[in-house]
Parts: sequence; C-alpha cells; structure tokens
Amino acid sequence: MRESFQVELDRLADDLARMARLASEMMSHASEAIQQADLALAELVISKDDEMDALHDDVEQRCVNLLALQAPVAADLRTVVSAMHAVADLNRMGDLAQHIAKIARLKHPTVTVPGPVRPVFARMGLLAAELAASAAEAIDKRDPLGGERLDAADDEVDALRRQLFQILFDEDWAHGVEPAVDAALIGRYYERFADHAVAIARLVGYRVTGQLPAEHHA
Amino acid sequence: MRESFQVELDRLADDLARMARLASEMMSHASEAIQQADLALAELVISKDDEMDALHDDVEQRCVNLLALQAPVAADLRTVVSAMHAVADLNRMGDLAQHIAKIARLKHPTVTVPGPVRPVFARMGLLAAELAASAAEAIDKRDPLGGERLDAADDEVDALRRQLFQILFDEDWAHGVEPAVDAALIGRYYERFADHAVAIARLVGYRVTGQLPAEHHA
Repeated sequence: MRESFQVELDRLADDLARMARLASEMMSHASEAIQQADLALAELVISKDDEMDALHDDVEQRCVNLLALQAPVAADLRTVVSAMHAVADLNRMGDLAQHIAKIARLKHPTVTVPGPVRPVFARMGLLAAELAASAAEAIDKRDPLGGERLDAADDEVDALRRQLFQILFDEDWAHGVEPAVDAALIGRYYERFADHAVAIARLVGYRVTGQLPAEHHA
Repeated sequence: MRESFQVELDRLADDLARMARLASEMMSHASEAIQQADLALAELVISKDDEMDALHDDVEQRCVNLLALQAPVAADLRTVVSAMHAVADLNRMGDLAQHIAKIARLKHPTVTVPGPVRPVFARMGLLAAELAASAAEAIDKRDPLGGERLDAADDEVDALRRQLFQILFDEDWAHGVEPAVDAALIGRYYERFADHAVAIARLVGYRVTGQLPAEHHA
C-alpha cells in the first residue's frame, strides 16, 4: 500500500510537470500568435486548452481519491494538498494563454500589438513561458526555485507592467483606444500567468515547510 | 469524534458564508468608491482585504487539519475539498474588490468612470455583490443556487462586458485612452469576481453530486 502510494505521488508530480510544460508551450505559441497575427497558432493554443482541462480533471480526481483511500498525513498530506493547488494554478495558466490566443483570433488579420508595445510583450511572453518551464523543472526535481530568483521575476513583471502603462498613457500614443485596451488586458493575462507559475514554483516548497506560498494565502 | 467533526464542518461553513458576505460588502464599497471617487471608502476596502486574508489562512489550515485528523471519506471528504476550493475563490474575490478600490485610490480625485460607462459598472457592481451574497446564502442553507439562476447571471455578465467594449470602442468615445484602459480592467475584475461567486454557489452542490463545478474543472 505505501509503495503504491509513493508511485501514485510520483505519477501526480509527473503529470503536474507535464501540465506546466504544456502551459509554457501554450504561452510561447500565444505570444507568437499575438506578435505575428498568426491565426493557425492561435487556433492551436485554443485547442490545446482541452488537453489541459482533461489533465486537470484527471489529476484533481486522483488527488481526491488519494485522500479518500490513503488518508495521508504530514508530508504526504501536504504533497497532495499542494498538488491540488498546483493543478488549479496550471488550469488557470492554460485559460490565460487561451485568452491571449483568442484576442489574436478575434482581431486577425490585424496585428494586435502596435510597435511600441512589441518589445514589452516579447519580454513578458518569454518571462511567462520561462517561469512555467522553471516550475516544471522544480516539480521534476522536487526542489523549489530559489526565493531570490522568483522575487526577481516578480519584480520584472511588475516593472514591465508599469512600462506598458507608461507607453499606453503617453501623449505620443497614436494607435487609438482599441489596441490600448487589448494591450492592457493582454498585459494583465501575462501578469496573472506569471503569478500562477511563481506560486507553483514556491508550492513545491510546501511539502518541505508546511507553509502555503503567498499566492495561496494572501 | 464524529460529533466534533460535524461541529467543525458547520464552523467551516459559517466562516465561508462570513467570507462571502465580506466579499459582497467589499465589492459594494469598491463600486461606490469607483463611481464617486470616494477615497475613504477605497481605503476601507483595501484594509478589509487583510481580514479576508486572515480568514483564508485560518480556514485553509483547518481544512488541512481536518484531512489529517479525521481522514474523511465520501460526502464528508467532498465537503472539505469543496471548502478548500471555496476559500481560494473567496480570497481571490477579496483581491479583485481590492484591485477596483486601488484604481479609485490611484486616480483620486479624478472620477475613473466616464459618463457612458457608469450605468454598466453600476449594474456589474450590483450583480457581483448580489452573487456573493447569494453564495453566502447557499452556503448557509447547504443548498446550491439553481443552475438557471446562475446561468442567467453568467449571461448577463457576458452581455455587460460586450456592452462595455462597444462603448469603449465606439467612435463617439471622447474620454481618451487612460479611462478606457481603466474601464476595461475594472470590467475584467467585476467579471472574474462574478465567476468566482458563481463557482462557489455551484460548489455547494459538489457535496451532493461529487461533481466539481465548471470553474474548477474547465
């Protein structure tokens, strides 16, 4: 029984890491779709969210089953609880990548990202995809990312968001209201995606410390 | 032991209902703050989020303790799992009300809501606060809201969001980029708040059916 429980926990971790890699891939493609007005890539991201939803339902149900059948305590219980939080985060990350892809689809063939915003979104997209990939690695290694690295990523996302608003609200902004509104929402989706990725990278530490990370308790 | 477990579950439900009423109150005040540029009310909402965070941490920890000490199964397990989902939703609802209040504070003494957007936000704010109050009632009565009522609320939020974009993107929009961007973000926060409230009202049914609601599995 104990052995099969550990096998189940390892399978959960594998699937969470797989979901994090999928989220990273979805966000890379969504960023490319929004920068290039690439409809096929936008459609791909939107269709991938079904895979994410299916993985979510499966992992969530297996967590509940483990609680029912194994009644884990201490570190094992924290692992299952943190898996339940992580799978919810990952599901939202898929939704957020899909939101960006849907804006690309809705506005196609117009390029949604006017010139001055392009480098900001390129960096936000890269950072978001990298954070999701790092979360996958942290899950694989059962080793949370260093707090300093996550704090630095948080700070950079905040700085990019401020930079975005400076561009949109500048009197030189010549692209009108609609692209500005789209850009503000896309910026918000990047930011939330990064928040969830950081929460997961920190969650891996919950097993060790018993302390839920900030995203989940503040 | 069983009796104290039921007492604990009832205490959890009481605190979740209390959090839902707090979220409703925070959203009412945030709406008023944004409509009237009322700085004191904005500050009140922002400070209330500490109370929400503290309730969240306490309820979350008690859920984990119940899993560890009582090893619940079947309907009892589903109640604890749904409480863990609901407390996360409620925490986000507090954050979202706070986001709206922070925009009111940041832009004070400017009124952030230009004329044509006012009735849309008035309705979104009322609907969001009502949904949170209904979620509290559903928790108190251990009786999920009717699916038709929730579907109708979802549809109305979607319609209001479309109406908002029509106003912002209309060629008659004369208020510039910054108020449009603020309005789009505020609209997003209302929408997410309503999504979470609907998820909670549906969650109450999880105990009965064993089926997680859409917000949590899609």
